[in-house]
Amino acid sequence: ASAPAVVHAQSTIRWRLASSFPKSLDTIYGGADVFSKKVSEMTGGKFTISVHAGGELMPAFGVVDGVQNGTVEMAHTVPYYFFGKDETFALGAAIPFGMNSRQMTAWMYEGNGLKLMREFYAKYSMINFPGGNTGAQMGGWYRKPIKSMADMKGLKFRVGGFAGKVVERLGGVPQNIPGGEIYQALEKGTIDAAEWIGPYDDQKLGFNKVAPNYAYPAWWEGGPQIDFFINQKAYDALSAEYKAIVECAAAAAHSSMQAKYDAKNPLALKQLVAGGTKLFPFPKDVMDAAFKESMALYSEISAKNPNWKKVYDDFSKFRADQNLWFKFTEAKFDSFMQSQKL
Amino acid sequence: ASAPAVVHAQSTIRWRLASSFPKSLDTIYGGADVFSKKVSEMTGGKFTISVHAGGELMPAFGVVDGVQNGTVEMAHTVPYYFFGKDETFALGAAIPFGMNSRQMTAWMYEGNGLKLMREFYAKYSMINFPGGNTGAQMGGWYRKPIKSMADMKGLKFRVGGFAGKVVERLGGVPQNIPGGEIYQALEKGTIDAAEWIGPYDDQKLGFNKVAPNYAYPAWWEGGPQIDFFINQKAYDALSAEYKAIVECAAAAAHSSMQAKYDAKNPLALKQLVAGGTKLFPFPKDVMDAAFKESMALYSEISAKNPNWKKVYDDFSKFRADQNLWFKFTEAKFDSFMQSQKL
Repeated sequence: ASAPAVVHAQSTIRWRLASSFPKSLDTIYGGADVFSKKVSEMTGGKFTISVHAGGELMPAFGVVDGVQNGTVEMAHTVPYYFFGKDETFALGAAIPFGMNSRQMTAWMYEGNGLKLMREFYAKYSMINFPGGNTGAQMGGWYRKPIKSMADMKGLKFRVGGFAGKVVERLGGVPQNIPGGEIYQALEKGTIDAAEWIGPYDDQKLGFNKVAPNYAYPAWWEGGPQIDFFINQKAYDALSAEYKAIVECAAAAAHSSMQAKYDAKNPLALKQLVAGGTKLFPFPKDVMDAAFKESMALYSEISAKNPNWKKVYDDFSKFRADQNLWFKFTEAKFDSFMQSQKL
Repeated sequence: ASAPAVVHAQSTIRWRLASSFPKSLDTIYGGADVFSKKVSEMTGGKFTISVHAGGELMPAFGVVDGVQNGTVEMAHTVPYYFFGKDETFALGAAIPFGMNSRQMTAWMYEGNGLKLMREFYAKYSMINFPGGNTGAQMGGWYRKPIKSMADMKGLKFRVGGFAGKVVERLGGVPQNIPGGEIYQALEKGTIDAAEWIGPYDDQKLGFNKVAPNYAYPAWWEGGPQIDFFINQKAYDALSAEYKAIVECAAAAAHSSMQAKYDAKNPLALKQLVAGGTKLFPFPKDVMDAAFKESMALYSEISAKNPNWKKVYDDFSKFRADQNLWFKFTEAKFDSFMQSQKL
């Protein structure tokens, strides 16, 4: 028999993906591997995407420029890294006292989140697909524990991007230090504290050895989203089938990353505590002051940045509704289970 | 130029999917629509799956038999409906005081959950893919609120499947009534209470009109998983590309359903409360007694059902680790946000 007519035949496609993460972090870097593997499997190897670690093709924080100007077809990164271009980027990842992981995903997939953020990212000639979430992060490693707001004054704190704006308003001194240099700065006492992600990733970087006090929660990262950014022209050139394949591979990577963090964090936490790490919650006065300063900051940005205002108005309404709902059955089920001997 | 050689060409495939749900529930029924749509899009319409509501091709609770004997290639259902065949089915969906939605997904994707459940489902000649989660459900509608364990005695309670075993141990009288007949039974007083899912779905069925007291949480459903069950031979006949497409379409449907519930429940809850629904938490003595009886039940089942024991041993260890981890940063972030004016 003759071969069937292939209506939807696709050419071979080779893309490059620039990650902002080091290969050593199988969790957050690994999301791009999952995506690339699934796309290749679904297309029988016809659509392949090579994944490049942060710094390999371009600086880790240069990946949005890289996608925008077409140096690479796509990137895997945390949108808030780019708040210096426009604060609106932070709303696509996490802002202090934002949403948790499930809420963020609900806003993206079933609220207005994806629609609004895509309108914004179009200004950078790119389209996004949610590509992972870490869950609520830990609040960082401190040489001395924070007992009250007084301890925030003058604190030299390595903290990711946008959250530094709030730390500054609390009297702290935010430091921007690449992941690979944090350990040494903390050991030397050049900085007083540093936050990274959570037990599994932090343990690899060894911060517990030089700053044994481990705070929770990272009120600035209740559920940060990682994104795939794709150059709009490269995306538009895909067939309808390949577009759907990209979307579903991203969805698989998105849930896979959160599952990986959830599965791997408990053992790391137990090992850290067994090794002498001391957990402490941020004191109430710090949480309250940080909340107040965050809300004041958002009002100020809303007054001067219409891109931010448009997205934040929707984000904050969705966040209010989510917390109203989650505080009943979700919170009650969880708190009961957390108080049992299991 | 001549047409390229099509190494991975696929034949046209038509499958039928039997759902256990009525079309009116766009959330839980809708997961199968999302799956079918994505598979069709990714294959340019070459692989199509027609979705049939509960009762259309076979009884809603006959879908596992249907998949096992090949009447349909696949089903979309809640595994715990089939605990009468073997209690182990319940572990693939939800058991009283089991895991929440994220924990269940982590166990499936990154713990041993999928591996262990697939070993078990192989006895029924089928393979599963996680296909949605509702999140923590509400605890049902009561003609009179439950104030203590005394109110559980003799309570005629319409409750889904496996949880009835625990309700019975608490002195209640579990009732097995199909979704479409619950309203009338509750109105007439044939039953005292009924649980279904949560605000968005329950509102559609109108239970609030006849039983205004709405309990939380459904301690028997902290995060029930819905599954796609596929006949093993039908699955084995797929090419590697189509297998990957099925997996990623299922992953997209899985996260999409949870997002839909999270996005839609808040408004429904507000409307219900505005309309006179009274929320109440299960009293501590009921929660404690239910927890104790559930653990006793699991020990009894473990002693006589090796299928259950193998899976439950892993499930319960994972659950303990998850709750240890979630009680720090996740719980603290959520409870702070839930206590703010947003």
